[in-house]
Amino acid sequence: MKRTAIYPGTFDPVTNGHIDIIQRAVELFDELWVTVAINPGKQPLFSIDERVAFLQESLNNYPTVKIDKFSGLVVEHAREVGASAIIRGLRAVSDFEYEFQMALMNRKLAEEINTVFLMPNEKYTYLNSSLIRGLAKFGADVSAFVPPCVLEALKRIN
Amino acid sequence: MKRTAIYPGTFDPVTNGHIDIIQRAVELFDELWVTVAINPGKQPLFSIDERVAFLQESLNNYPTVKIDKFSGLVVEHAREVGASAIIRGLRAVSDFEYEFQMALMNRKLAEEINTVFLMPNEKYTYLNSSLIRGLAKFGADVSAFVPPCVLEALKRIN
Amino acid sequence: MKRTAIYPGTFDPVTNGHIDIIQRAVELFDELWVTVAINPGKQPLFSIDERVAFLQESLNNYPTVKIDKFSGLVVEHAREVGASAIIRGLRAVSDFEYEFQMALMNRKLAEEINTVFLMPNEKYTYLNSSLIRGLAKFGADVSAFVPPCVLEALKRIN
Amino acid sequence: MKRTAIYPGTFDPVTNGHIDIIQRAVELFDELWVTVAINPGKQPLFSIDERVAFLQESLNNYPTVKIDKFSGLVVEHAREVGASAIIRGLRAVSDFEYEFQMALMNRKLAEEINTVFLMPNEKYTYLNSSLIRGLAKFGADVSAFVPPCVLEALKRIN
Amino acid sequence: MKRTAIYPGTFDPVTNGHIDIIQRAVELFDELWVTVAINPGKQPLFSIDERVAFLQESLNNYPTVKIDKFSGLVVEHAREVGASAIIRGLRAVSDFEYEFQMALMNRKLAEEINTVFLMPNEKYTYLNSSLIRGLAKFGADVSAFVPPCVLEALKRIN
Amino acid sequence: MKRTAIYPGTFDPVTNGHIDIIQRAVELFDELWVTVAINPGKQPLFSIDERVAFLQESLNNYPTVKIDKFSGLVVEHAREVGASAIIRGLRAVSDFEYEFQMALMNRKLAEEINTVFLMPNEKYTYLNSSLIRGLAKFGADVSAFVPPCVLEALKRIN
Repeated sequence: MKRTAIYPGTFDPVTNGHIDIIQRAVELFDELWVTVAINPGKQPLFSIDERVAFLQESLNNYPTVKIDKFSGLVVEHAREVGASAIIRGLRAVSDFEYEFQMALMNRKLAEEINTVFLMPNEKYTYLNSSLIRGLAKFGADVSAFVPPCVLEALKRIN
Repeated sequence: MKRTAIYPGTFDPVTNGHIDIIQRAVELFDELWVTVAINPGKQPLFSIDERVAFLQESLNNYPTVKIDKFSGLVVEHAREVGASAIIRGLRAVSDFEYEFQMALMNRKLAEEINTVFLMPNEKYTYLNSSLIRGLAKFGADVSAFVPPCVLEALKRIN
Repeated sequence: MKRTAIYPGTFDPVTNGHIDIIQRAVELFDELWVTVAINPGKQPLFSIDERVAFLQESLNNYPTVKIDKFSGLVVEHAREVGASAIIRGLRAVSDFEYEFQMALMNRKLAEEINTVFLMPNEKYTYLNSSLIRGLAKFGADVSAFVPPCVLEALKRIN
Repeated sequence: MKRTAIYPGTFDPVTNGHIDIIQRAVELFDELWVTVAINPGKQPLFSIDERVAFLQESLNNYPTVKIDKFSGLVVEHAREVGASAIIRGLRAVSDFEYEFQMALMNRKLAEEINTVFLMPNEKYTYLNSSLIRGLAKFGADVSAFVPPCVLEALKRIN
Repeated sequence: MKRTAIYPGTFDPVTNGHIDIIQRAVELFDELWVTVAINPGKQPLFSIDERVAFLQESLNNYPTVKIDKFSGLVVEHAREVGASAIIRGLRAVSDFEYEFQMALMNRKLAEEINTVFLMPNEKYTYLNSSLIRGLAKFGADVSAFVPPCVLEALKRIN
Repeated sequence: MKRTAIYPGTFDPVTNGHIDIIQRAVELFDELWVTVAINPGKQPLFSIDERVAFLQESLNNYPTVKIDKFSGLVVEHAREVGASAIIRGLRAVSDFEYEFQMALMNRKLAEEINTVFLMPNEKYTYLNSSLIRGLAKFGADVSAFVPPCVLEALKRIN
């Protein structure tokens, strides 16, 4: 039986914390869809196509990882790709509550899909995309926190 | 002695989680004012009059419940209607801290009014108005989460 | 309609934080039972009768407060005294989770009884009976934290 | 590739919340070891063999579930049975911190094994074995919270 | 050895909670820089120069306190003034997580600078600048929460 | 002005997480007393003199660190050694609440002494003495978590 999972997110931009979670999920599932949310309400730093391209470049040595984008409900996209699990990273208590509310709601909408929580390396506890955007704006060195292609793109726009 | 409480909120829109808290508060007080905050700074999905109308239709079989709207400080409106208690629902730790800060501040402003915290049925732990607005925008079925009149209105605007 | 509530606890010993919660509950209910749990498994500092006596002496100017003791399930004692509400103080996040688990379980056992959470004055956030027992053992001055009769008793035994 | 996971615990006794987690883990892994910790330091209500027997009776219609017992480090037992994942249920913030500390320590001891967190049905948020033992002692009806064989055993000893 | 610390913030406006933290930090360090963040992305209630002026007036009897403003990274400004510590107030769990993420990131950027957390008087647990702005807008009396010069300025603009 | 701080604890045994906090405190204060609590109520793994000896051996290259033991109230011992600050490590939310209650109570008992919270390296987030004792009992390799002298002692007794 092929086991498929989906790892949804905004990935604006992908960080090494996301990559860490993806590496762990790859061990647990036969196929992993990393899927970028198209959120019309927010103004992202990078376009949807740039965000997809960063993921493709960062993850091209993982043959079971597939990258795509989606709009609408996560559970509907999960069903489209045949996923039985939604992957989410948990870093801190504040993650916990938001993630639990989302997971409970997703379960109401699609009882057969489970949310699977993974914990990144503790050195990424402090890391999120919003922090990276803020640090890059001030010219801080973020090379330890993002893949090389993201680092280059941040340098170009700041 | 008649005991009156006030249950303030944005109610954009009212959910079954709000109704659950109101049913519990009705058991504890002789009169309950459910009062919709007029917040000029935010752009609500439903107008203040629509939000009041949803509450009136959803709660018309509770004779001790009164619906109105207010702007300004909650404690001043509580005093106007003669309330000795402010009702708030507590669902999760993130609620807890925000609600405690508001309750402590309200106590500074009106020492004689207590905030009374009630806990909804655990099936509403995941539920809030913002989530409902997001789900409805994507066409998800929210019939289990809102009163019928809200369900109809969400269908009309999406 | 007479509204009755029950405020259960170990009260080993009663502190000014408990008294603060009781004063708030007295405003909200016609009758308040402050009821001391008989817990055979724990070795308390003060006997069940001493704990009841401290409460009686500290609360003798509140005519609607009744003091007693109970063993077994809180909800069964609530039914015996005709209470529609269980009063609990909430001070901090760690309280929150334990109290919510108890409240949800009590609701399973007695659907008609609600748990009502009240928040003490913020100056009692740090206060609990265990801390008082520890401080008194080292001879610290705890006169700001407990009623006079408890202060005398602590001095006698340390 | 066969994927194996381990779900360690004290299970004193197994509750319907544990069963809920096991049912979710069964969907995600080819083989699931439910393994009872032999903890010499604690005095359990049920013996290690009774706890194993309750699990066997409650889970005998899950062909991919294996029941056993262990002492020592969880990660060593995980290696013995060839597990690449440790399953843990997350219900509340207080779970979260303890579980994260354990998961981080286990990762230090066995880098190749991931802890996978699953969320039970929200109706089991309030449930744990310690609460069941307390309720059963007072004669409360716990039939909604434990498998039938545990219910019978609790009735016999109380 | 002269010990210098920096206390960065938006201070829009400074509250008595900030003053409380500053008084504690003054005891611990030989020199304290209270430094107002210039944040181009946000629309503050008071201009950067007004916020600096409120701090100067409120703190003019503390000879070791210096007031200035900065843009960019906190750790770079800390290095410029020779600070070995960043002061932050901790009031509640929600503070805790955000502050820890910032402190961990700052440590990555400047290993030699430590973040020092201080706890204000518990009567300021509920207090933050955003709440003050909201209360002042509704004409509430905030004289207990802000220095006199801020109180005057709030009255002028509301 | 000489600035002195006190870092109280049980240190049963001292871990590398404690050492990390001590190294940070040494940067902030002229003199640091690391002081081992004599707690008659608990049965420690190591005697009070062993725990003092481990600290002396682990910290003998820090000339401003002094090791001693105390019983009774922390604030009284702080006054005896002339400390204006109590050092505490904060690792997680569960630490936070307990530590805040202790800090608030200590402030009631000694207004002039501040509690200063420091954050260890994130790799010690998962680490505490109780975990070390448990791991050592099962023969796990804890060489990354404790100073060499503690490692030797743990091997001898297990």
